[in-house]
Amino acid sequence: MKRKSGRSLKIAAPPGTLIHTGDKKVEKVTISIIDYDQDHVREEHASSVEKCCVFKETSSITWINVNGLHEVSIIEDLGKCFKIHPLVLEDILNVDQRPKMEDFGDYVFIALKMLDYEEDKEAVESEQISMIIGKNFLITFQEGEGDVFDAIRERIKNSKGRIRSVGADYLAYTLMDAIVDHYFIILERIGDSIENIEDELMLNPAVETLNTIHNMKRKLITTRNSIWPLREIIAKLEKAESPFIQRSTAIYFRDIYDHTIQVIDTIETSRDMISGMIDIYLSGISYKLNEIMKVLTIIGTIFIPLTFITGIYGMNFRYMPEIEWKWGYPFVLLVMLGIGITMLIYFRRKKWF
Amino acid sequence: MKRKSGRSLKIAAPPGTLIHTGDKKVEKVTISIIDYDQDHVREEHASSVEKCCVFKETSSITWINVNGLHEVSIIEDLGKCFKIHPLVLEDILNVDQRPKMEDFGDYVFIALKMLDYEEDKEAVESEQISMIIGKNFLITFQEGEGDVFDAIRERIKNSKGRIRSVGADYLAYTLMDAIVDHYFIILERIGDSIENIEDELMLNPAVETLNTIHNMKRKLITTRNSIWPLREIIAKLEKAESPFIQRSTAIYFRDIYDHTIQVIDTIETSRDMISGMIDIYLSGISYKLNEIMKVLTIIGTIFIPLTFITGIYGMNFRYMPEIEWKWGYPFVLLVMLGIGITMLIYFRRKKWF
Amino acid sequence: MKRKSGRSLKIAAPPGTLIHTGDKKVEKVTISIIDYDQDHVREEHASSVEKCCVFKETSSITWINVNGLHEVSIIEDLGKCFKIHPLVLEDILNVDQRPKMEDFGDYVFIALKMLDYEEDKEAVESEQISMIIGKNFLITFQEGEGDVFDAIRERIKNSKGRIRSVGADYLAYTLMDAIVDHYFIILERIGDSIENIEDELMLNPAVETLNTIHNMKRKLITTRNSIWPLREIIAKLEKAESPFIQRSTAIYFRDIYDHTIQVIDTIETSRDMISGMIDIYLSGISYKLNEIMKVLTIIGTIFIPLTFITGIYGMNFRYMPEIEWKWGYPFVLLVMLGIGITMLIYFRRKKWF
Amino acid sequence: MKRKSGRSLKIAAPPGTLIHTGDKKVEKVTISIIDYDQDHVREEHASSVEKCCVFKETSSITWINVNGLHEVSIIEDLGKCFKIHPLVLEDILNVDQRPKMEDFGDYVFIALKMLDYEEDKEAVESEQISMIIGKNFLITFQEGEGDVFDAIRERIKNSKGRIRSVGADYLAYTLMDAIVDHYFIILERIGDSIENIEDELMLNPAVETLNTIHNMKRKLITTRNSIWPLREIIAKLEKAESPFIQRSTAIYFRDIYDHTIQVIDTIETSRDMISGMIDIYLSGISYKLNEIMKVLTIIGTIFIPLTFITGIYGMNFRYMPEIEWKWGYPFVLLVMLGIGITMLIYFRRKKWF
Amino acid sequence: MKRKSGRSLKIAAPPGTLIHTGDKKVEKVTISIIDYDQDHVREEHASSVEKCCVFKETSSITWINVNGLHEVSIIEDLGKCFKIHPLVLEDILNVDQRPKMEDFGDYVFIALKMLDYEEDKEAVESEQISMIIGKNFLITFQEGEGDVFDAIRERIKNSKGRIRSVGADYLAYTLMDAIVDHYFIILERIGDSIENIEDELMLNPAVETLNTIHNMKRKLITTRNSIWPLREIIAKLEKAESPFIQRSTAIYFRDIYDHTIQVIDTIETSRDMISGMIDIYLSGISYKLNEIMKVLTIIGTIFIPLTFITGIYGMNFRYMPEIEWKWGYPFVLLVMLGIGITMLIYFRRKKWF
Repeated sequence: MKRKSGRSLKIAAPPGTLIHTGDKKVEKVTISIIDYDQDHVREEHASSVEKCCVFKETSSITWINVNGLHEVSIIEDLGKCFKIHPLVLEDILNVDQRPKMEDFGDYVFIALKMLDYEEDKEAVESEQISMIIGKNFLITFQEGEGDVFDAIRERIKNSKGRIRSVGADYLAYTLMDAIVDHYFIILERIGDSIENIEDELMLNPAVETLNTIHNMKRKLITTRNSIWPLREIIAKLEKAESPFIQRSTAIYFRDIYDHTIQVIDTIETSRDMISGMIDIYLSGISYKLNEIMKVLTIIGTIFIPLTFITGIYGMNFRYMPEIEWKWGYPFVLLVMLGIGITMLIYFRRKKWF
Repeated sequence: MKRKSGRSLKIAAPPGTLIHTGDKKVEKVTISIIDYDQDHVREEHASSVEKCCVFKETSSITWINVNGLHEVSIIEDLGKCFKIHPLVLEDILNVDQRPKMEDFGDYVFIALKMLDYEEDKEAVESEQISMIIGKNFLITFQEGEGDVFDAIRERIKNSKGRIRSVGADYLAYTLMDAIVDHYFIILERIGDSIENIEDELMLNPAVETLNTIHNMKRKLITTRNSIWPLREIIAKLEKAESPFIQRSTAIYFRDIYDHTIQVIDTIETSRDMISGMIDIYLSGISYKLNEIMKVLTIIGTIFIPLTFITGIYGMNFRYMPEIEWKWGYPFVLLVMLGIGITMLIYFRRKKWF
Repeated sequence: MKRKSGRSLKIAAPPGTLIHTGDKKVEKVTISIIDYDQDHVREEHASSVEKCCVFKETSSITWINVNGLHEVSIIEDLGKCFKIHPLVLEDILNVDQRPKMEDFGDYVFIALKMLDYEEDKEAVESEQISMIIGKNFLITFQEGEGDVFDAIRERIKNSKGRIRSVGADYLAYTLMDAIVDHYFIILERIGDSIENIEDELMLNPAVETLNTIHNMKRKLITTRNSIWPLREIIAKLEKAESPFIQRSTAIYFRDIYDHTIQVIDTIETSRDMISGMIDIYLSGISYKLNEIMKVLTIIGTIFIPLTFITGIYGMNFRYMPEIEWKWGYPFVLLVMLGIGITMLIYFRRKKWF
Repeated sequence: MKRKSGRSLKIAAPPGTLIHTGDKKVEKVTISIIDYDQDHVREEHASSVEKCCVFKETSSITWINVNGLHEVSIIEDLGKCFKIHPLVLEDILNVDQRPKMEDFGDYVFIALKMLDYEEDKEAVESEQISMIIGKNFLITFQEGEGDVFDAIRERIKNSKGRIRSVGADYLAYTLMDAIVDHYFIILERIGDSIENIEDELMLNPAVETLNTIHNMKRKLITTRNSIWPLREIIAKLEKAESPFIQRSTAIYFRDIYDHTIQVIDTIETSRDMISGMIDIYLSGISYKLNEIMKVLTIIGTIFIPLTFITGIYGMNFRYMPEIEWKWGYPFVLLVMLGIGITMLIYFRRKKWF
Repeated sequence: MKRKSGRSLKIAAPPGTLIHTGDKKVEKVTISIIDYDQDHVREEHASSVEKCCVFKETSSITWINVNGLHEVSIIEDLGKCFKIHPLVLEDILNVDQRPKMEDFGDYVFIALKMLDYEEDKEAVESEQISMIIGKNFLITFQEGEGDVFDAIRERIKNSKGRIRSVGADYLAYTLMDAIVDHYFIILERIGDSIENIEDELMLNPAVETLNTIHNMKRKLITTRNSIWPLREIIAKLEKAESPFIQRSTAIYFRDIYDHTIQVIDTIETSRDMISGMIDIYLSGISYKLNEIMKVLTIIGTIFIPLTFITGIYGMNFRYMPEIEWKWGYPFVLLVMLGIGITMLIYFRRKKWF
């Protein structure tokens, strides 16, 4: 609902007007700064935007992470300080953004989706991560708290790996790598769900199962729409045409590119399997109908002729010789038993039960 | 109907003959002019085409908006005055035009669809907007009154944003941006309808629901056909190959391009979901049939054998020992009750009810 | 049938052998010539091929139209006189040709399909139109009489529009434009048929309706196959790489190109709608089955238990106390009425009727 | 079966090992040679490979045709004599080859499929034709006897057409043209079959019909897989980049290219129609089920209430006033008749019969 | 399960961290070395990585094959010795890798899938093969023992074919050729399974059959995902842009390329056939339902009216003249027989049995 009103507000406004279109996910916007070079590392929480600006000119690598987007003035001030184009600021705030990458000469702007699987809701939650890669600095914007970057923060602080010795582009790569790696976890969850549904379909197809399948399809399409544009974005980064992406980092982006393709492959496979599941469901329903009809038909086919025979001897005609016979009654009972057994044998042969 | 006769009239005529193929949506054609530069702004309603022509040579930016297309002579005169190719005039009048963009050297011609969702008819209405972007002037042609540009008019008059300080290309961008932003509103409506239908499908699938789905599909296809060609048009504008599209405006067109892609993504997703809904509908029908058959089968399976038993003791054989027994009747009643209860337990185990 | 034998004859023959593969649609081949420049116009019916040849060298524009293809020698003589490659002559006579365009340096060869909707047969008839565009001349070949060019002939004679002042390429354009415009009429007819079928499907789905849909699909595919290659052909003409296609005419071909895309869009939309109709049809059948089953089930469910009760009291046990009761009969009737009404209320609540 | 073991043998062997993977279709490998130039023509059956080699250097055009591939040594000797790359020889013997074309500088290698419709088996038989086009010579390899080239042989001998005055590339073209032309005959047969099935579906849908459709689909897919790669092959030949393909021959390849596209179009159309036929079949089955259910329901609905009435008066209550009435019996009969007729009228109105 | 935890472990780690994501398929990692040139060949099992390193500088061709990936340090040491990029080592250990090829200047890295059909499990097993092609050396990494290279080892030792006289690129080609050739065997197995299922579907469609089809589809999609990227990889190798791929080897890669396309064609055809099988299955179910309904309807339609007649004469009206007739009983029996026979004839005509 809020999303819609955000959009609607936005539509009336001129381009470049800064309006946050998402939900307010944190109470207060917080800014954390990690500044590091090969020898030292410093982490702090900025109380004001000005504190961030001083890092613009330093030769050490600075990662400024903004949590929460609803205080538009903060974004605006950061934009002024780092000389970011108004359209970019607008894109950062518009969290319904399609993933995109744009090279503005002085910096590169990337917007991504960080996906998370909410166990209790059985839903894929999407959060927009915007990145601004400049000379010696990287600014990231998140909608709320909680991300997949904690391991990277540890690595910077503990000087593990090559992360401390290389530039902001490599830092951006590690963040993107963490996001893409996290997609695999989402897909594993979805894959598990698909297997569960398949088992359910075999055992007992219910109308709710079809709804689950339908929702699963929706989830997959959402996920795909979030991930699909990444292909193109990373392909551009890999070509390293921007001065902020070094040749030596490009090879790492090629690696993410391969992972992205693999994620997309998995999604397409899942979609194929899901469309097959609908066939199984429908055939399960048909099969059940067949089972029901069989029972009805066996009952009907056996008893209807027998009831007809009882009807004959229930007629009140004056002259019915059989009626008078001493063994008429047991004889008719035997005949009916015979007919019934014959029918049963016939159906058994037809494999009806 | 009128559309068809418009087309038919047109077919007999030589190319370049100006025939309006749409409905007459306004009584009288009106022309409004907004002329502005950084310092002043002037708005007036032109009483004649000549009044417009004087703005051709001025250095201020002029936006001429023509409401209504049925007075062909007005279009023709404007065409002469601004030296517009006859084929372009023909395209302006032919409102069944596919969205297109053509660069004629002296000006750029763009034809778009402005979509509107009519709440009461539950239909997507399409209106053609043609634009001619020249040096310092922009001419727009609309079929009728009412558009999505009021906010832009306000902005020009109030000198809000950068609109007053830049050229006719930026004005064209803001108009196109307003049109594309409005597409999101249409899609939100369609999205709401889809959710409504999904709920309806779950609760009570009716034949009418399928018709609603079919119409929804038609609506989506129409919308897609209107929007799809935009991709290409805006991609061309973004490349800024015309002298009338400045480098600095191109970045804004890139922004619209992203929005257009997002609109198309949303439409494709909706189409996917709709095709899934037909499966749900069909399975709902099958499920209902199953439910009905179950009732019939339970009734039949329980009572047919019982009726057979009553038939046996309704036979008129002279020698039927059970008939004479004192407790024969209550015993048979008990037997029948036993059979009935056994059946019910059996069906309960089979989860038939 | 004839088509097949035409093909078969052709297969045995060496390439370049001239064999007419179509039906003989006119009794006698007729040749009409319209020769014009800006000042004068002359129309005549050529009695022999030689009469045509003299127009090859004149500076006025000459349009030679051949009606009927079964007199192979006429085509051959024309070919010799205008120095046309044997493969082109073969293509002209082979009316099962896919639309194509080839530039032979001295002339451009175009083969198109002229479509016509035969009201009484409810079929789309296709006729091949071949064009040879040379310097100052245009030769067209038709299978039979009757075409969509009468308005153009009038325009030439009455010197209406720019047709008289420009070259053979523009004449070719007007002919192609007339053919493509005529496609819209076909599509309107097909569109009407689709709407009719949709109404029919709602009211009363019958097996014949499905056949109609199947035939409609076939018709659309045929139409599409005739039109699809046009896209490419006109795109080539638009690029105006041949010396016979002037720059100023190219812009007109761009216009036809847009129309062709629009025609193809319409066809694709129609195909989408038709595939949706099959779903509606199948669901209509299912719905009808449901309705029938409901009736059967209501009848069965109400009367089977009642009949069972009558069976009980039809038994001939000696000791059945109820039988002797004075109010036994009316009481049982009331019980049965009660059961029946309860059932009806139950079904009404289940919305079965 | 043999195909598989051929493949399997091959897999164990090093690349370049010559193994024939097809069936032995002729008893003995035969080689026929036609040597011709504008003035003379000579036809002979070569008893040994050496006899062929002498033709390599002559200036006349030589067509060497090898019937049968199972004597690997013959292929090997020919390969040595004409200096053919081992991979090409391997491709010639591997008859499961996908159609391909490769330019080896000294010669061009082409592998095609010649299709034949076996009336009695109702199957499309595929035979691989390999061609080696060199300077003044053309070598063709066939799996067995019987081909579509007899008319061409006649033409060479009778000096009909331009075939005798041009090079080996033109000869290759005429052979390929004959093969592609023959595809049309296959497709006509398949088209006839489709029409037959459609009629059958209308009259009496049977399970076998669905199998026929399924086989037809398989046949079409096989045919398409054989023909699809031709597009690319001929497009390459048309570009005439090899010194052995003359400019003047390229135009003829363009003609085959058009035919190939037309064949592919026809196949795609057939596939579309076949997928529609499955819908018709399924709906036919549903329709039949409906018809059956109608009969059951009409019978049930009419007689069940009537039987209930007879049940009532079959009860043995002591006090049943109607029983004693003189006109009770005929009255009840009339009531039952009335109920029956009312039902029939109701069903007639519902258009159930 | 292990795969997932492998992935999960990996996600937390920095890029370049070496973690084996697959199952441990062999107890101990073994390294075998084959070193050869035209004159001599030497095979040995390396006890340590250092033993391998000495072969880096020799001019003879060295094939180092590593069986088992779980001892990460071995891979790491090899990497250091042959100067392999950490990302490559990571890719070698990450066995969920999508097939890829990367040129690192000093060497070319290729990752492929070797597929195997496990008869008993009826499953396609996938094993990752990584190759590093350098100057005069080829390193291959396999997950476990058992591969398709034994014939190649024989060929090297016996100096069969050209393998001993050419470089490491040709050796890589023969390995890849063996892998691709093995795909055909997998596809033959799958093809056999499809034929079995088709036969089963005809004879007796069961719910399990649909599951088999569903699993088959999954198997095919997995196979396709493993093979599809090969197309691109081999196309790159064919272009021979790396100094380690010689011109003369490129022609051989072209051959594999053709095989890969053929494999993909076969997979697509199989998928088409499988989707058709679901239609056959569903129609089989429908057909069975029809058969059951027919039996029920025939029984019902014949006996319900007859039972009604017995009901009539079971009524206890005092005045029923027929009851008193002497031949009433046999006459009614005859009438009922007549009705029954008429019904049977009617159904026979309707071809219901």
